[in-house]
Amino acid sequence: MTVRRREFLAGATLPLLGATRSWTLGFPTAPPGEPAAAPLPRLRPVSYRQVRLRDSFWAPRQRINREATVPHLFRELERAGHVSNFERAAARAKEGYRGPVYMDSDLYKSLDAAAYVLGLEPNAGIAEHVDKLAALIRAAQQPDGYVNTCYQVKGRTRFSNLRDDHELYCAGHLIEAAVTHHQATGSRALLDPALRYADLIDRTFGKGPGQRGGYCGHPEIELALIRLAGHTGDRRYYDLARFFVEQRGTKQFAVEHGVPLDRYDGTYFLDQCRIREHTAIAGHAVRAGYLFCAASDLAAETGDLEMLAMLDRVWQSATERRSFVTGGMGSSHHNEGFTSDYDLPTYGAYQESCATISLAMLAHRLGLLHGDARYIDVAERALYNAVLAGVSLDGTRFFYVNPLASMGTHHREPWYDTACCPPNLARIVAGLGGYAYATAERDVYVNLFVQGTADTGLARLEVMTEYPWDGRITITLREPKTSSFALRVRVPGWSAGDVVSRVNGQPSTDAARERGYLVLRRTWKDGDRVEVELPMPVRRLEAHPLVAEAAGRVALARGPIVYCIEQCDQQAPVSTLVVPAGEELRLGPAEPRLLGARTLTGTARSLEGASSEDLYREQRPRQPRSVPIKAVPYGFWDNREPGPMQVWILAG
Amino acid sequence: MTVRRREFLAGATLPLLGATRSWTLGFPTAPPGEPAAAPLPRLRPVSYRQVRLRDSFWAPRQRINREATVPHLFRELERAGHVSNFERAAARAKEGYRGPVYMDSDLYKSLDAAAYVLGLEPNAGIAEHVDKLAALIRAAQQPDGYVNTCYQVKGRTRFSNLRDDHELYCAGHLIEAAVTHHQATGSRALLDPALRYADLIDRTFGKGPGQRGGYCGHPEIELALIRLAGHTGDRRYYDLARFFVEQRGTKQFAVEHGVPLDRYDGTYFLDQCRIREHTAIAGHAVRAGYLFCAASDLAAETGDLEMLAMLDRVWQSATERRSFVTGGMGSSHHNEGFTSDYDLPTYGAYQESCATISLAMLAHRLGLLHGDARYIDVAERALYNAVLAGVSLDGTRFFYVNPLASMGTHHREPWYDTACCPPNLARIVAGLGGYAYATAERDVYVNLFVQGTADTGLARLEVMTEYPWDGRITITLREPKTSSFALRVRVPGWSAGDVVSRVNGQPSTDAARERGYLVLRRTWKDGDRVEVELPMPVRRLEAHPLVAEAAGRVALARGPIVYCIEQCDQQAPVSTLVVPAGEELRLGPAEPRLLGARTLTGTARSLEGASSEDLYREQRPRQPRSVPIKAVPYGFWDNREPGPMQVWILAG
Repeated sequence: MTVRRREFLAGATLPLLGATRSWTLGFPTAPPGEPAAAPLPRLRPVSYRQVRLRDSFWAPRQRINREATVPHLFRELERAGHVSNFERAAARAKEGYRGPVYMDSDLYKSLDAAAYVLGLEPNAGIAEHVDKLAALIRAAQQPDGYVNTCYQVKGRTRFSNLRDDHELYCAGHLIEAAVTHHQATGSRALLDPALRYADLIDRTFGKGPGQRGGYCGHPEIELALIRLAGHTGDRRYYDLARFFVEQRGTKQFAVEHGVPLDRYDGTYFLDQCRIREHTAIAGHAVRAGYLFCAASDLAAETGDLEMLAMLDRVWQSATERRSFVTGGMGSSHHNEGFTSDYDLPTYGAYQESCATISLAMLAHRLGLLHGDARYIDVAERALYNAVLAGVSLDGTRFFYVNPLASMGTHHREPWYDTACCPPNLARIVAGLGGYAYATAERDVYVNLFVQGTADTGLARLEVMTEYPWDGRITITLREPKTSSFALRVRVPGWSAGDVVSRVNGQPSTDAARERGYLVLRRTWKDGDRVEVELPMPVRRLEAHPLVAEAAGRVALARGPIVYCIEQCDQQAPVSTLVVPAGEELRLGPAEPRLLGARTLTGTARSLEGASSEDLYREQRPRQPRSVPIKAVPYGFWDNREPGPMQVWILAG
Repeated sequence: MTVRRREFLAGATLPLLGATRSWTLGFPTAPPGEPAAAPLPRLRPVSYRQVRLRDSFWAPRQRINREATVPHLFRELERAGHVSNFERAAARAKEGYRGPVYMDSDLYKSLDAAAYVLGLEPNAGIAEHVDKLAALIRAAQQPDGYVNTCYQVKGRTRFSNLRDDHELYCAGHLIEAAVTHHQATGSRALLDPALRYADLIDRTFGKGPGQRGGYCGHPEIELALIRLAGHTGDRRYYDLARFFVEQRGTKQFAVEHGVPLDRYDGTYFLDQCRIREHTAIAGHAVRAGYLFCAASDLAAETGDLEMLAMLDRVWQSATERRSFVTGGMGSSHHNEGFTSDYDLPTYGAYQESCATISLAMLAHRLGLLHGDARYIDVAERALYNAVLAGVSLDGTRFFYVNPLASMGTHHREPWYDTACCPPNLARIVAGLGGYAYATAERDVYVNLFVQGTADTGLARLEVMTEYPWDGRITITLREPKTSSFALRVRVPGWSAGDVVSRVNGQPSTDAARERGYLVLRRTWKDGDRVEVELPMPVRRLEAHPLVAEAAGRVALARGPIVYCIEQCDQQAPVSTLVVPAGEELRLGPAEPRLLGARTLTGTARSLEGASSEDLYREQRPRQPRSVPIKAVPYGFWDNREPGPMQVWILAG
């Protein structure tokens, strides 16, 4: 079978985590009658492969990810049946499939994570494992490009239940892994089967003669196809992604499953309305996150005003009413998703790791689209807190659900029957550098502050900082390619705009502020040194009063880090600790058992908790006693002695 | 088939809700080597059939129960497949069974509820419906007495999965319905098939030759058999109940289901240890409640010290660490049961209606066993709050789960796939009078205060009171059968012991206090009038500091009633309301839309809640504004405009 496609564009790469291509794909975008396009900054992300993290915060996590997590994923894929499913399919077996319908996606996402690791440095063991699994995928793939081990082994009719069976979702993860792998290694071992499958999907779905409509119950294929379009330069994949996004909301699931339209609520599947009609983020949180990522990719191409307005509405609902202080989203176990405004529970918070990842992805995309730092604030909060919490410090245990308080019984697991989160966490940690920098024509954007280096294309940056524990950041510019450009340094929202900056030791009092960035525009020479100081007081956050379970409580934060209190650090039960209004909390010592994460310390009051007390009694004045309190970053919790944990602490 | 049994003891009736027989069955009790027996007060409950409730609180609920709920149950049994299951079984059909395995129990429990109603007054419509269903049960029953429509229609092997399939549980509910019906009407329409089935079970299970061991995954048969023994005077049923209770904990479920003993945790099934070894209430809440009810029935017979000590431990854990302020128990959706001490969530509270009922049943039994009012305090709290909340004011919608706070999305349903709660609520409301009075040799106990009459055997009591809205209770004694006896009036724990009492207008300053009762001992004449005044200030309850979600909050209570705030009564969002420490709350007007339930009113402060506020922001001094606050009894919530609700309110 000959696949028609353009030669790859030189340097074409992924939009999400570090494209070096121009942000827009450059395809004609506006069909007749489409609304006018908005002018958008459309920054280019700097690929994670151009960024080296050499700090005390992320670099150890990337090392653990490479040395422990990725090998753990490979082991679990063997143990849990993912590999044997592909072996069954390759053997054309008709029985013996194991696990839920979307098992293949876990394997693809693990390959994606492994490929991200390979994009940073060679690793023979991982490369060999990837090649072995890629060969297995090719062996399982049917001659026309179809590959889905569940459907093949169980003998189901292809694409017969798009709502529930995740075939296109799995295909999307194959495509993403393939693009990452090809970018990282130049190998076509995954790319070739991914292209064959993408072409089959492209022949099957669409508005052409003999093609069918439909869309996957779980968005993902859309993101993947847009990445593939960017990587290959082949417009068909972009058009197909757009087709899927724009078909969604035609309520085909109702028709396919015999649900009367007047009784159909497609919200869970993001099928409640057409893409431009969404008024708030709703439904299954990961599905929502991925869909709106695809919508923002489309908006980046088209500048479609209606799409941009929809994304604004969705963004506002997500960040102003429907996300957790720890950076994640999705309140309810019931639908793994959204409920109502301000329903942001603590013990009951769902905050699935994948949902937080999808919010970080969306925030990053919108930040690049609008060139506005406030979006990156949200990505940073997600990455440094709820994403980080998803994986244990040894790299082999994962949270699927991330509550904001625990009685001491919620712990990470090595794997899940639905194992979407472990490999998703692994790939975002490996690709983290892709969130840090971006460029425009004559601008270099510094979005995250991580010690290390970045080759931005306009100049190489050498960054020295103890961030997130310290707000002083020194950026040395090396070998500027263009002598005159603006260095735009994000001024985080949490800093309330307070920032001191110097260039080569001289205060840069004339630096402008634009869309949340400090703009240092000048003719740069090799060795120019920019110093930025972000103040990092301990902050006491309070929630909107309609966040019922946080009422009367505060969360502690410093810089981008949101803290929690774990029982093993306290001398009184965490539920009894009160942070008095006047009491100062300070940056405490590094905690050696938490990779040196910095604690917060101070004095709290404890409501007494003698076990002889009545369960309920008439209120009487407490005799609170002063006790030390110690808080640790939420992203590091549940790595020591198990016990109760709280993010929201009683406020005195 | 001839069933050997003694003639019914004259007047023999149920131990639970109003026996007129002696409390103990009088069978020989102590096998060789059994520990010494404790001397126990062992009060006799006054049957609900001897009690007429003519108040403004319960009487309307009983009317609604009779006029709306019981007919609703009958309709739902038709609609949901319960009746057709019996028709299928009667027709010896081998397909067409509908619903979960325990469907029969819903029908039996509905019959039990209907029979309770018939025990209060004749009702031709209900009686006819009961007879029709009883005929259907007899038609479905197999010649040897076995009846279980699921097993019969599906052709399963009897008693082949005792852990999961609820056959003995269903049998128990048939037996209970049969006893209630026979007591209420004298009809043997249900009693005969129940006896046939009980005899089959008695032949099948036991330690005799050819008999098998085992016990049901869900306790219930034990209670039922003890009732049947009391009702028939046939010791076999008592011995069989004791056999089941004492077999439990031998971990036969592990053996039967191939679970290695070192990996078996039978806690969910109350199979983690032998009956006398329980150290706390744990596992599935309803199973626990029913099992310990059976254990207390056995303890009442035997006075078994080890059993009594176990019940003490279980009771303490339930009431001191594992029950809700609204009177129910069972924290977690996960196991419909208990988790850890002080894990008593608010939004996430499970507090299944049936679990609350089982706690009321257990509290009542232990109260009678020990003649101690503190147990009745717990029964009263359950009955007046979490039990009452289970059913809507129109009698046709029910809560299965009873959270202590809601964002406004938790509402009653007309029925559930697992429909244990609706008929359980109906039967406890109909039989409520059985909780109110008890007697001993020369004592009449007044446990609940409900306007109406009670024929206690020692005297007829005429009670006038506006309880629970007012603490003044007037009891007129009529036709005392024995001139000298003690009237023992419960002094509720919530009254802190403060009580004023008068006999015929004269202060009874010499009245003793024994085990929570005011003891008025004298030679009574017809027309003697006892007045009791219980003070009813509004109380602000606080929880033990380890109840994390209640920390910094208060619950409002007055008398036995626990209040909540519903959005439809407030001028500010309920989550923003703060009850200041110094602010007085008063008994407010009757709420006409809540059957005249009395509200609490006062002034609260509201944390501002303008929708333009940030979701999270740095803590700053609030500018609270004064707003009226109005609270309604928890037992009446979700009967008006849907909206947020909270029991635990921020304390200022």
